[in-house]
Amino acid sequence: MPDNVLRCLQEKLSLMRERRPLIHHLTNFVTMNDCANMVLATGASPVMAHAPDEVAEMAAVSGALVLNIGTLTLPWIEAMVVAGKAANKAGVPVILDPVGAGATKLRTESCLRILDEVKVAVVRANAAEAAVLAGQAGEVKGVDAVSGDAPSAAQALARRFGLVAAVTGVIDYVSDGLKTVKIENGDAWMGRLTGTGCMASSVTGCFCAVEEDFFTASAAALAYYGAAGEVAAGRVEFSQEKSGTEHWPVPRGPMSFKTAFFDAIYVLDGRRAAELARVSRSS
Amino acid sequence: MPDNVLRCLQEKLSLMRERRPLIHHLTNFVTMNDCANMVLATGASPVMAHAPDEVAEMAAVSGALVLNIGTLTLPWIEAMVVAGKAANKAGVPVILDPVGAGATKLRTESCLRILDEVKVAVVRANAAEAAVLAGQAGEVKGVDAVSGDAPSAAQALARRFGLVAAVTGVIDYVSDGLKTVKIENGDAWMGRLTGTGCMASSVTGCFCAVEEDFFTASAAALAYYGAAGEVAAGRVEFSQEKSGTEHWPVPRGPMSFKTAFFDAIYVLDGRRAAELARVSRSS
Amino acid sequence: MPDNVLRCLQEKLSLMRERRPLIHHLTNFVTMNDCANMVLATGASPVMAHAPDEVAEMAAVSGALVLNIGTLTLPWIEAMVVAGKAANKAGVPVILDPVGAGATKLRTESCLRILDEVKVAVVRANAAEAAVLAGQAGEVKGVDAVSGDAPSAAQALARRFGLVAAVTGVIDYVSDGLKTVKIENGDAWMGRLTGTGCMASSVTGCFCAVEEDFFTASAAALAYYGAAGEVAAGRVEFSQEKSGTEHWPVPRGPMSFKTAFFDAIYVLDGRRAAELARVSRSS
Repeated sequence: MPDNVLRCLQEKLSLMRERRPLIHHLTNFVTMNDCANMVLATGASPVMAHAPDEVAEMAAVSGALVLNIGTLTLPWIEAMVVAGKAANKAGVPVILDPVGAGATKLRTESCLRILDEVKVAVVRANAAEAAVLAGQAGEVKGVDAVSGDAPSAAQALARRFGLVAAVTGVIDYVSDGLKTVKIENGDAWMGRLTGTGCMASSVTGCFCAVEEDFFTASAAALAYYGAAGEVAAGRVEFSQEKSGTEHWPVPRGPMSFKTAFFDAIYVLDGRRAAELARVSRSS
Repeated sequence: MPDNVLRCLQEKLSLMRERRPLIHHLTNFVTMNDCANMVLATGASPVMAHAPDEVAEMAAVSGALVLNIGTLTLPWIEAMVVAGKAANKAGVPVILDPVGAGATKLRTESCLRILDEVKVAVVRANAAEAAVLAGQAGEVKGVDAVSGDAPSAAQALARRFGLVAAVTGVIDYVSDGLKTVKIENGDAWMGRLTGTGCMASSVTGCFCAVEEDFFTASAAALAYYGAAGEVAAGRVEFSQEKSGTEHWPVPRGPMSFKTAFFDAIYVLDGRRAAELARVSRSS
Repeated sequence: MPDNVLRCLQEKLSLMRERRPLIHHLTNFVTMNDCANMVLATGASPVMAHAPDEVAEMAAVSGALVLNIGTLTLPWIEAMVVAGKAANKAGVPVILDPVGAGATKLRTESCLRILDEVKVAVVRANAAEAAVLAGQAGEVKGVDAVSGDAPSAAQALARRFGLVAAVTGVIDYVSDGLKTVKIENGDAWMGRLTGTGCMASSVTGCFCAVEEDFFTASAAALAYYGAAGEVAAGRVEFSQEKSGTEHWPVPRGPMSFKTAFFDAIYVLDGRRAAELARVSRSS
């Protein structure tokens, strides 16, 4: 299956950039702008819309729907369910980012409600959020994971709800309940920015819009995303058009890393992403 | 009339930077931060306020009011109408950005309601949004134009509602229904960022706060905005204080372009903007 | 007391970066992302949550609670009061940023309500906002101070409500009503960005989470914040790991300053911040 992931990177990223599928988000206020720019840099077309009066109409014409509960309130959860059902009806894959599940009752219960009423294709979470939703122990502080066994949580979450679980951390794990891959791309700078989880969910949505095997799509998305982080951190060789093979400069701090990260997402193509990808079976 | 535009750039940009008019926004969650920083970089003073309890008070003391429906809900539209009426009463120009009009019924109908109840000075839109509101055919995908004949849509929209239509794209068109100018400034990098349309509306608001001929103000705003994009893309000579005449570095990706774009908006003065402006009559 | 401030910088910043206290925000839509990244760069852990159903739960486990009324509505004020009371009960310090108090009745009255119902530890404001809340004359245009005598407003505000007033401007003043210090750090570039006030409040929250003397915490926060601005502006010597002693490059415009500012916040440690701090008694 790692081969499928590489093939997806080589073939589907360029397809996405040609088709520019619409990625509909109901997401949090904190990272909305970042998610929109991340989707554009990846190669798709973002739209953020949350009015109950229009979400069904928008979701139905999208390539993927991303639900992110980062700054949830009850009316937003209501709109997420409406949008999710419309996406289900139209065959549009739904990605759920359960930000802070486990930190408050409202967050945990809202996620369980969405998972109950909407057929979710992929949950993209950190280890603690995944563990909480899988019914395992997991400690969440605010919106950050404190504990949680990532591969086990990924598998349990996937099995419990019959979906793909994409659990990110220092090492990422993607599981459909039967098979699990680990992705060893990424850089420590990514953890020093708000929204790197949210943006990973958005990029997962982009890949699910062009690759109907959501297990493969999720693993490809995370490998691409992590590889761009390595390029931005100046850790890997990267040949940019006209500039020859070179490392990017080492970031001076988190915001110069952020600039480089979005730039790297934009310039990284499927061929180089597949070369940089470190995807393997997880025992 | 291109002469008026150049004169506006030469005289009114510095006036704006002296007076720092308040630009009141009811705008979307995605690009609020960008619009605020763009207004500051242009030389005016942004305020975002949407509570029905305060919008009339705030709008009445502003230099311009920008209504942007990017993440609309019914209560926000309600507040926009209240703010718009207060602006009308106080003689404050209203700029409408009909983000995604045509993409959903809610968006189209909300714009038509605002245009019915509020005297709008300028609509800043893409070609498809303008065509939809003018009653022509126009295809909108999410919040992006797919089709639409820009100069015709601009003229028709201006005539239908008796306002200035500023329709942006590869070439921008500004029409008051009788006369139309085209503005050939800008750079392809601008389309790779979210919010370049929203920010163009905010900058239009800034110019309308100091130039009472809104046709001239809109054309000047778009020429200035596009010229800054060219500077940021490293395509034109630009002499920055102390650094001599030089091109800015070519962006590595969309986020390094974004940084350069805001910087260019800030350092570009009216004299150099007028030199770079490519404004002409549209047949 | 300037000695206490230096000691706080030398000892508590590293402690914060070790403990990473949760800083719970109910803040405005415009600068939420900036505040989250600023808290991360400082060394704490941000969470933004405003649902009435979860704010009490979140506030009670936080190191500090930041209430910022920048884009207030009545339901948000309601949630702020609920969160504030929960924080009070749990002994969590509350920081209030009364954005635009004085600009509209809603803003002034909402602040007075919060100050009446919640025990606020620190108000971080500009001179005009502080003057308005202290019952003095102060002119506010939108969300910017036009007038107001900073040291007098700080002292009066502190006395009126029995709290620490941290009033920022070209010179910052921190008062507990009896003693007042002035902080002469900072750079003009900071005023050319939206949200520098909001972020100062967030950083104040970070320091209050690790230093229980809120007068000292506020002064240390503002000295650190201003010193980072000086580093980012290329005005002071700054030795970054591996790169030797050097000035940072002079910003080309506000957005390259913004990038450098977040980077400087991240790399500045307590020892160097204490060297750069210019804190003295205010007569």
